[in-house]
Amino acid sequence: MRATTIHAARDIRLSEVPDPSIEADTDAIVKVVAGCICGSDLWPYRGENDITAGDTIGHECVGIVEEVGSAVTSFKPGDFVIVPFCHCDNTCAHCAAGMQSACENLGFTASGQGEYTKVYQAEGSMVKTDGMPDKAMIPSLLTLSDVMATGWHAAVAAGVRKGGTAVVVGDGAVGLCGVLAASQMGAERVIAMSRHEPRQEIARAFGATDIVAERGKEGAAVIAELTNGVGADAVLECVGTDQAIKTAFRAARPGATVGFVGVPHGVELPVRVMFQRNIGLAGGMAPVRAYLPELLDLVTSGAINPGLVFDLTLPLDEVAEGYRAMDERRAIKVLTEP
Amino acid sequence: MRATTIHAARDIRLSEVPDPSIEADTDAIVKVVAGCICGSDLWPYRGENDITAGDTIGHECVGIVEEVGSAVTSFKPGDFVIVPFCHCDNTCAHCAAGMQSACENLGFTASGQGEYTKVYQAEGSMVKTDGMPDKAMIPSLLTLSDVMATGWHAAVAAGVRKGGTAVVVGDGAVGLCGVLAASQMGAERVIAMSRHEPRQEIARAFGATDIVAERGKEGAAVIAELTNGVGADAVLECVGTDQAIKTAFRAARPGATVGFVGVPHGVELPVRVMFQRNIGLAGGMAPVRAYLPELLDLVTSGAINPGLVFDLTLPLDEVAEGYRAMDERRAIKVLTEP
Repeated sequence: MRATTIHAARDIRLSEVPDPSIEADTDAIVKVVAGCICGSDLWPYRGENDITAGDTIGHECVGIVEEVGSAVTSFKPGDFVIVPFCHCDNTCAHCAAGMQSACENLGFTASGQGEYTKVYQAEGSMVKTDGMPDKAMIPSLLTLSDVMATGWHAAVAAGVRKGGTAVVVGDGAVGLCGVLAASQMGAERVIAMSRHEPRQEIARAFGATDIVAERGKEGAAVIAELTNGVGADAVLECVGTDQAIKTAFRAARPGATVGFVGVPHGVELPVRVMFQRNIGLAGGMAPVRAYLPELLDLVTSGAINPGLVFDLTLPLDEVAEGYRAMDERRAIKVLTEP
Repeated sequence: MRATTIHAARDIRLSEVPDPSIEADTDAIVKVVAGCICGSDLWPYRGENDITAGDTIGHECVGIVEEVGSAVTSFKPGDFVIVPFCHCDNTCAHCAAGMQSACENLGFTASGQGEYTKVYQAEGSMVKTDGMPDKAMIPSLLTLSDVMATGWHAAVAAGVRKGGTAVVVGDGAVGLCGVLAASQMGAERVIAMSRHEPRQEIARAFGATDIVAERGKEGAAVIAELTNGVGADAVLECVGTDQAIKTAFRAARPGATVGFVGVPHGVELPVRVMFQRNIGLAGGMAPVRAYLPELLDLVTSGAINPGLVFDLTLPLDEVAEGYRAMDERRAIKVLTEP
């Protein structure tokens, strides 16, 4: 099959690779209908993570079940499924506690930007739609495999509450989904930190009540002003850089929690500030499967439309251009069609 | 009056200092009935914090109101009061949110190891007992000014829940109070990490169901064994060193929170581990006033007896020996009597 591979920093190719196949009876093979590029794919793309030349890349996709192992009983070929980027048995102690991203049988989607992908622990991981979805709904369904679930996790981790004030640091697709999550959870005020007009527009469409274009200390000063000097009840950190984390802690009120979902790169946590101001940190890799039933309902009912984060759709053989567009911030998030 | 002063590392004296006096109408002067030495007093004692020679030291005490400013209407001379180490107006936005240790009018007890102490924001800070307490109850009441409230805060921050498993890192007085707090909050299993027999004994009296004498990775291995490989639902970090923090994160299950109350010294938070395993960190300086009504009820009803942490009582003029005894771990916690 054809799948996206990475060979070095900024060297993304569409390559011929072996078809994935059922090896364990818990596996499934899914024919990818839509995949996409994740902000976290840009870390290896930019050479910030180690690369094994020739590895496939891409962990977000939705598709149609092609084949299932004998232990997979709830799915059959032809089902349309959301594939969480992290696979889980959904029965172990960690899954039972809602922490599916720490499953004892954790697996990952490896060829979401390809024609087919393998799902480990398919029974516990996948969630199917009620029949074949409309084409128009596919982008939103696709976000549930990672980005929307991750933004949701940021809001859960930050403890967003009805009537409270939430600040979202980061205007990438995850940050925008964080805005949508905070708004859905009933935050009265959702402050999105963004300097980019097209992203600000989506943030507003997702429920942002305020936009702060300033960064760092200046941004924190504006947030202090917006919150009567108190700070935000909940802060969603959706970037993963040291600057973003520092901004997040500056925006939080004493007793608040920073929910972080950006893979940390070069982050030094300000432990003294956290202690002195009682500001907690929670979050990490999103337990996508835990949120899927609720998020799928929200998408299929039309309550949320997270697919708006895709502003560029490319055929798979232009995937390298998709990476370039996201790297240069010409695109917020790129959907790839096999 | 006589009060404890610090002049250099390991140079503690009982000195003659000016009597505190009412300056603002929100002040009160309290005649100290009992004070004590805090684990955090050992940081300057050991030269790990900056010292201003001649400064008074000691922030924990209970006593009898001597004089109040005109804005203090709920207290009168003769009332027996708990003096939280951090003073608060109990009305500002942070206090209203239960984060009194971030009060806009924050103050601190400065001569708890002295004959008198001044309480800023006395109306919002102090809590009085119903009449004069029995002498036997004074140690337990004294713990409410800091150590018991701080152990309680660790348990609250860690999210201890009925039926769960809690691990307490640190067998100092705060850690022991953390054991008591976790037990009171209904944790089914309270695992105390301690290598010292007398401290283990108090931990058991406070509700510890298991004692782990091993430290670091070995300690974490024992905890993994005790929890079927899952880890603890809540971890209370009551030391403040890097080793203790690392141990705490090793003991926690994915999705758990480490509640930390030990003033961090040389701590580097393991941000990658926190992210990968979704282990949060929360806590800081305890909002003592928030917990006082509930804790005072628990003490006066006899439900808890945190005063057991005091294993040495000294007259004020032997306070220097008290510091030595705690520094050398000959005493868990020293009560000083003016």
